[in-house]
Amino acid sequence: MPEAASARATRAVIGDSEFDRDTAVTRRAPGVYDIDLSAGWTIINAVNGGYLLAVLGRALADTLPHPDPFTISAHYLTASHPGPAVVRTQTVRTGRSLSTGQASLYQYDDEGNEVERIRVLASYGDLTTLPDDVRTTATPPAIPPLDQCFGPADAPAPVEGSSAIADRLMLKLDPATLGWALGAPSGKGEMRAWFGLADGRDADPLSLLLAVDALPPTAFELGLKGWVPTVELTVHVRRRPAPGPLRVSITTRNLAGGFLEEDAEVWDTDNHLVAQSRQLARARLT
Amino acid sequence: MPEAASARATRAVIGDSEFDRDTAVTRRAPGVYDIDLSAGWTIINAVNGGYLLAVLGRALADTLPHPDPFTISAHYLTASHPGPAVVRTQTVRTGRSLSTGQASLYQYDDEGNEVERIRVLASYGDLTTLPDDVRTTATPPAIPPLDQCFGPADAPAPVEGSSAIADRLMLKLDPATLGWALGAPSGKGEMRAWFGLADGRDADPLSLLLAVDALPPTAFELGLKGWVPTVELTVHVRRRPAPGPLRVSITTRNLAGGFLEEDAEVWDTDNHLVAQSRQLARARLT
Repeated sequence: MPEAASARATRAVIGDSEFDRDTAVTRRAPGVYDIDLSAGWTIINAVNGGYLLAVLGRALADTLPHPDPFTISAHYLTASHPGPAVVRTQTVRTGRSLSTGQASLYQYDDEGNEVERIRVLASYGDLTTLPDDVRTTATPPAIPPLDQCFGPADAPAPVEGSSAIADRLMLKLDPATLGWALGAPSGKGEMRAWFGLADGRDADPLSLLLAVDALPPTAFELGLKGWVPTVELTVHVRRRPAPGPLRVSITTRNLAGGFLEEDAEVWDTDNHLVAQSRQLARARLT
Repeated sequence: MPEAASARATRAVIGDSEFDRDTAVTRRAPGVYDIDLSAGWTIINAVNGGYLLAVLGRALADTLPHPDPFTISAHYLTASHPGPAVVRTQTVRTGRSLSTGQASLYQYDDEGNEVERIRVLASYGDLTTLPDDVRTTATPPAIPPLDQCFGPADAPAPVEGSSAIADRLMLKLDPATLGWALGAPSGKGEMRAWFGLADGRDADPLSLLLAVDALPPTAFELGLKGWVPTVELTVHVRRRPAPGPLRVSITTRNLAGGFLEEDAEVWDTDNHLVAQSRQLARARLT
């Protein structure tokens, strides 16, 4: 069998992939879901915030009558760790075209008490029911072809911040936003990359929640180092993504007072803007 | 007394103004606040979403140990009306520099049952404790001087969408984003204005929650008409605003599938970016 055909045959698909298995929640009772948070989505020992949002998003999709997160707002309370967790969901309102829910993810302290990690409000709808109409003229980010972008495997030494999650992502950074990895940050609050799952699973609304929080922090290109913990992250999923790699562009306009925002846009291979997000994060001004 | 001195003497101040009186909540019990929603902040019979967010923001400021909303995310469930309402708050987590809370605003149906209007998650801090550091080079929006911008009183006929709230705002629109009022929308998703309270009360973090949702919808400049109801609105308050009028710039990049986002930036007279917001709203594609 030619290599290309072999690669296609073993490619993971939506519903049967590591991302699907690692975000799967088990309903223990109505509105109560168990999950073992995977160590595979950690970055510098913290569980990635986008992966956690996808876990909460799956529990809400099971709870609410609509399948897709149109807008989901997460406030990150305490750092999550790989291991057992429970998600508790609540239906806030159900409507014809939109329903709203709330969810919290908890882990356990040494005495077995639940400690809340993240609380989420979200409004769900059905993306397949939306008209195909696009009225704006926004264009995809200018980013070189995939084979001219660079990932951790291309670096002479491991790229700072790489961790378990890097093995599960197809992440190829625009060389124009890679200065930080070479010790020469551009000073601009920009980060751009091609994004996919390493096993070839195509994107869906749930994996878009991961895509918006998977690039290195724009703070690196602004000359800062170290962890940039998310305080709040809101994602708008605007359209079902077409198959193939996504382009993700992140912009920061305001690094001030020890905080910064990160605005992400995600574009699919059909040149549709499929998701937008904004997060408020803490920066260490050193 | 010269007219200018008279105007200064009667100018409202933070804490003693119509905005303060109309957002004041009365604590009935811990975490339970009563308010009579004012008819003064309505637009086409709907109570303005930014005014409602300020009401919720005040209740949370009373509940949480920190005074200022750093990031507040609201999901709008049902339309609010002038009249009695109750706000219920909950402390989710308290930390040294940030605390997180939740709040809901309810009104009453014909049988006196509570109907939830809005649910909010917010993380509060103390803006006065933040370092003065600004690392980015974002610049204020290009907008002509205040006396070259236009408000409802300048229009030959009432500007579409004007209502009670117009009397309480000092809102002067950039002529470049005023085409819709003259029947010639620009086709660009932009709206810019000088913003203040009509009684001269200066801005504070609470009134910034109003400022981000007080301009005409960008959808008007994209050629759409009618109401553009907010599904979700998240505001980041980044700095205490300096006295004087604010500049508000709103941008829409993606009007598609019957929804659009509105990104707002609010700049103060010291040229500091004091707030950023993003909302997801429904658009009627006709």
